[in-house]
Amino acid sequence: MLSPFILASRSPRRKALLEKLNLPFEVVSSSVQEDHISSAEPDKLVRRLALEKAQEVAKQFPHRVVIGADTVVVLEETVMGKPAHQAEAKEMLNLLSGRRHTVFTGVAIVKNANAEEHTFYDRTGVTFFPLTHEMIDRYVRNTPPLDKAGAYGIQDWSACFVEKIDGCYNNVVGFPLSRFAQLLRTPAIQERFGIDHFMSDG
Amino acid sequence: MLSPFILASRSPRRKALLEKLNLPFEVVSSSVQEDHISSAEPDKLVRRLALEKAQEVAKQFPHRVVIGADTVVVLEETVMGKPAHQAEAKEMLNLLSGRRHTVFTGVAIVKNANAEEHTFYDRTGVTFFPLTHEMIDRYVRNTPPLDKAGAYGIQDWSACFVEKIDGCYNNVVGFPLSRFAQLLRTPAIQERFGIDHFMSDG
Repeated sequence: MLSPFILASRSPRRKALLEKLNLPFEVVSSSVQEDHISSAEPDKLVRRLALEKAQEVAKQFPHRVVIGADTVVVLEETVMGKPAHQAEAKEMLNLLSGRRHTVFTGVAIVKNANAEEHTFYDRTGVTFFPLTHEMIDRYVRNTPPLDKAGAYGIQDWSACFVEKIDGCYNNVVGFPLSRFAQLLRTPAIQERFGIDHFMSDG
Repeated sequence: MLSPFILASRSPRRKALLEKLNLPFEVVSSSVQEDHISSAEPDKLVRRLALEKAQEVAKQFPHRVVIGADTVVVLEETVMGKPAHQAEAKEMLNLLSGRRHTVFTGVAIVKNANAEEHTFYDRTGVTFFPLTHEMIDRYVRNTPPLDKAGAYGIQDWSACFVEKIDGCYNNVVGFPLSRFAQLLRTPAIQERFGIDHFMSDG
């Protein structure tokens, strides 16, 4: 009997992405507060928060491989997490309009029984078309983006905001799927986390 | 009573993308043969085939705005359409392994009653990780890619093949959604095609 992985995230988008890998997993969400107001570099910040989420759940399930993730949007020096309310969502989208920002997602895998932790991150550049106030108002009204870093979900109607991206698309959705799949194929990782019986292919 | 747009494509992926725009449309597939063996430049080729598809359907529905699209994968000098069989699908994926290719999608909108045609294309660079024969075999067996240019669908498990992209993601799926939405917002296009009563927002 194989122990499924645990995804320490309540994001339905991350769940949908991980399902593409045909790996057995279940969701146990953490209660970690995503405090993105920090002087840390974005890559350190998302890895630290991903690790905190995974660690919290891993304490309850020491023999399971727990996956954490955290995503932020970075516009020049500003780090954006999830907007607190609709007005902040509109502010964020106004800032992103017509400019290029970077999406950082950190991923952590933790297995306490093996005393193993591994983190990595990916970054993707996203260029928005100029947005009208009308587009922003409609988007925020019709697709409340309060659960999304930077106040947009690239897989929904805001796909129309995006002129181009540079990097991994799924990283923008919230999980760098292909890099994660590559990691699971690494013999050293399979051995250290005891997951060599899982096939990540097919 | 508004006349819905017509999408002249039987691709379920294009239909799913167009649904994100909240435009009324229906699907009428064309019988145009996608002959991608041509000495034409890829951008001309995809626009010509998109136009042929739209024109064929527009003849039957002269008062409707018909949308056609065509996608090819270009690796250096080789233009790849849909693979004819599984062996060709494997060949294509072997060629794409570990390299960067370019996806071209051409879009045509046609309204015969107004004697209007408009075409454009978008191109996106896609870089694949090196693929093992095992990964390719499993993918072709489990997700038969015979209906997809270049023998992969970036939204399915082959997402794991992709290290990064450069440009529009939905263009790789088969329809450059955001550029299309931009086009529909253009007053000149709205006027010429008689679609100013459609809002592409929200």
